[in-house]
Amino acid sequence: MFAEFEHDALGALTVVLVRARNPLNIGAVARAMSNFGCADLRLVQVHAPSHEDAVSAVGPSQEILRAARRYESLAEAIADCALVYGTLAPHGRAPQQPMEPLPQAAARLRAQMAVGRVALLFGSEKTGLSNHEFSHCQGVLGIPSRSEHASMNLGQAAAVCLYALMVAGFEEVPVDSPELLPLAEADHVDRITSHLAEALAAANYVGIGRPWADENLRALVRRLRVPQQDASALTGMLRKIVHVLNRTEKDLD
Amino acid sequence: MFAEFEHDALGALTVVLVRARNPLNIGAVARAMSNFGCADLRLVQVHAPSHEDAVSAVGPSQEILRAARRYESLAEAIADCALVYGTLAPHGRAPQQPMEPLPQAAARLRAQMAVGRVALLFGSEKTGLSNHEFSHCQGVLGIPSRSEHASMNLGQAAAVCLYALMVAGFEEVPVDSPELLPLAEADHVDRITSHLAEALAAANYVGIGRPWADENLRALVRRLRVPQQDASALTGMLRKIVHVLNRTEKDLD
Repeated sequence: MFAEFEHDALGALTVVLVRARNPLNIGAVARAMSNFGCADLRLVQVHAPSHEDAVSAVGPSQEILRAARRYESLAEAIADCALVYGTLAPHGRAPQQPMEPLPQAAARLRAQMAVGRVALLFGSEKTGLSNHEFSHCQGVLGIPSRSEHASMNLGQAAAVCLYALMVAGFEEVPVDSPELLPLAEADHVDRITSHLAEALAAANYVGIGRPWADENLRALVRRLRVPQQDASALTGMLRKIVHVLNRTEKDLD
Repeated sequence: MFAEFEHDALGALTVVLVRARNPLNIGAVARAMSNFGCADLRLVQVHAPSHEDAVSAVGPSQEILRAARRYESLAEAIADCALVYGTLAPHGRAPQQPMEPLPQAAARLRAQMAVGRVALLFGSEKTGLSNHEFSHCQGVLGIPSRSEHASMNLGQAAAVCLYALMVAGFEEVPVDSPELLPLAEADHVDRITSHLAEALAAANYVGIGRPWADENLRALVRRLRVPQQDASALTGMLRKIVHVLNRTEKDLD
């Protein structure tokens, strides 16, 4: 197993830290990434001083920390990712996606990494990911742990997830699995979501335009796991629908 | 998988920290133990202030830290353990036992936990386990990681090992496997080692009595993985041999 281990074993993985606060934790996540061969770290709404403190600590993961990009919005950070998973303590509040235990989720993510970029999201140390942030995810994974003390340290949770992903690479991947369809990237899925929202608004569908409705709609579209090959067709269909709906409204005036 | 997860999933596991220095790391190991349902922490040659600093941090793993016992010698700390594994960075120096990758070792340890206490040893942050300490182990496990940066943080390494052990519990255990023979506890294996050393000394075997020879002999006996049911017979055989060797020598005088 050691001989097979590749330098960039998790090269198609992006780790996204959302609102992480503690430079030590940011450093620990980068260290685990370096151990397991993942180089792409992205920081969303992380204070620049926390990032800079983490960079200043000397070590073999410094390169990862220095190259880490900072974003204001999660949507920007994951724009080029085709499969986006959020992480949740297993007995935390129910998100909008069904939760998969890490061993199963790891196999799925690893298989998808063969055909597209995969993002794994970790929330802040204090509150985890918000419902808004989960609505950007196609899936949610949980690390099985004891119900009396399920909340893991951020650096340890990241190490465990990366280990599971690394190990999943040594297992048989069912090559003809439908899971291996390349999925549309997040920015394309965003456009589909916007067109659907427009269509629903034009059709006076109840609640569209309110924040909770936007989140629910975003999560619904992510649950569909739109294949890359179908994204343009879906976009076209929705634009046509929006166009006709708007014209119909005009005619009715 | 979450529903099946038991409160004391890793109840038959003992985590042993040898010469750990940093209270934050000791605390992180205890936190991972609490997450994954392992309660028995033992500290070998850990400075009392480091232990007390770790205890003083409030958190759900405080109970584990408060109950942790301190030992001066590794032999005392593992006396009641039937299977003892040391941990090593995968590209570290070769120990006296063949190294097993974590996923395979975890399955073996987990199976053995059904019939006896299992100890998992972690060395100091700076130097890991010494050859002397490895000579007390029946096996050595390594976490597969990138050769350019294999050295993991202690708290993260412990979390990864405990996760792997926990996940191994959900896999099929071959009930009739020879691995499931209960093994002799470490203090009994120590007595066998002593008698063998006596016998070799009485037979003027080369090198016996020198420190490196003691370590090699201890490691050799551990590699045998003496079953519980054979330990007393082996002790008796060796005592008889020692007795006759000493008498023979007397006769020769």
